Amino acid sequence: MDLRPLIRTIPDFPREGVMFRDITTLFAHGAGFAHAVDRMTAPFTESAIDVVAAIEARGFIPGGAVARQLQAAFVAIRKKGKLPRPAIGEDYELEYGIDRIEIHHDAVREGARVLVVDDLIATGGTAMAAVRLLRRANANIVGASFVIDLPALGGADRVRQLGVPCHSLVSF
Amino acid sequence: MDLRPLIRTIPDFPREGVMFRDITTLFAHGAGFAHAVDRMTAPFTESAIDVVAAIEARGFIPGGAVARQLQAAFVAIRKKGKLPRPAIGEDYELEYGIDRIEIHHDAVREGARVLVVDDLIATGGTAMAAVRLLRRANANIVGASFVIDLPALGGADRVRQLGVPCHSLVSF
Repeated sequence: MDLRPLIRTIPDFPREGVMFRDITTLFAHGAGFAHAVDRMTAPFTESAIDVVAAIEARGFIPGGAVARQLQAAFVAIRKKGKLPRPAIGEDYELEYGIDRIEIHHDAVREGARVLVVDDLIATGGTAMAAVRLLRRANANIVGASFVIDLPALGGADRVRQLGVPCHSLVSF
Repeated sequence: MDLRPLIRTIPDFPREGVMFRDITTLFAHGAGFAHAVDRMTAPFTESAIDVVAAIEARGFIPGGAVARQLQAAFVAIRKKGKLPRPAIGEDYELEYGIDRIEIHHDAVREGARVLVVDDLIATGGTAMAAVRLLRRANANIVGASFVIDLPALGGADRVRQLGVPCHSLVSF
């Protein structure tokens, strides 16, 4: 099944010159969503994944499904200030300014085998912050799985340079 | 499997007198998460659900998994301003002020059989706004599924009064 036609491209969004890849149309296609989840899961079925750690907010959508398919735990990597208990965080750079992601300080046990999930990887800033954050919790990051990769922006290569195998379904 | 002990209770959060039910500890338990997803799915396996519509952000976590289990499409009910294409929205009241949820105007086809998913129902303000929003898109709302119900706050009863069967796994 070719997932590419299910992803809607919006030219000049959020500003001129950017081709925005809208994944909502893929998720809103039943067979497409199931296929995407299963293909994100497949490379890791023999990897004894303990935890799927998915990045807020769109990463939660395939992340929850991949966790269920792998019989793994689910840990939400949240934007700052969303968690009710003491958290550890990592900053990452945006085009203008910085942002921060957090997990509960006790969310991942030491040595847990973790798969990072997000909907899309572009420059990799968020994914690299997720890797740093999970490593501070002494997690063993087995891989990262994305629906969409934008290879011209180099994010997946940067994550691989951290020693994390990256897998994606569709490249633009 | 008793899910209740997997949900962490935080007294006096976010303010004195409130017992906050922290679902992150349930999701971070592999067997607990799988069990929760399967029990949310079970009442609807024969309901020919076309679309799981889950509410941002925590609702996305079980929502994606339930959609995969049902081979259904997934539609994200988002906080305002997050969607890249023209959207329809519904306001709902918070304790102080109002907020708004949105879906793309073309996210759900007319007559689609929809299951609403969220992590928790309290007063039901968000869930009722989701029902109004999906009905404006001419969806056929078959039911709503929550992990946690706080029945003293009456939300599930209010949603039932809109003609939507409500199902939950744990009550506090």
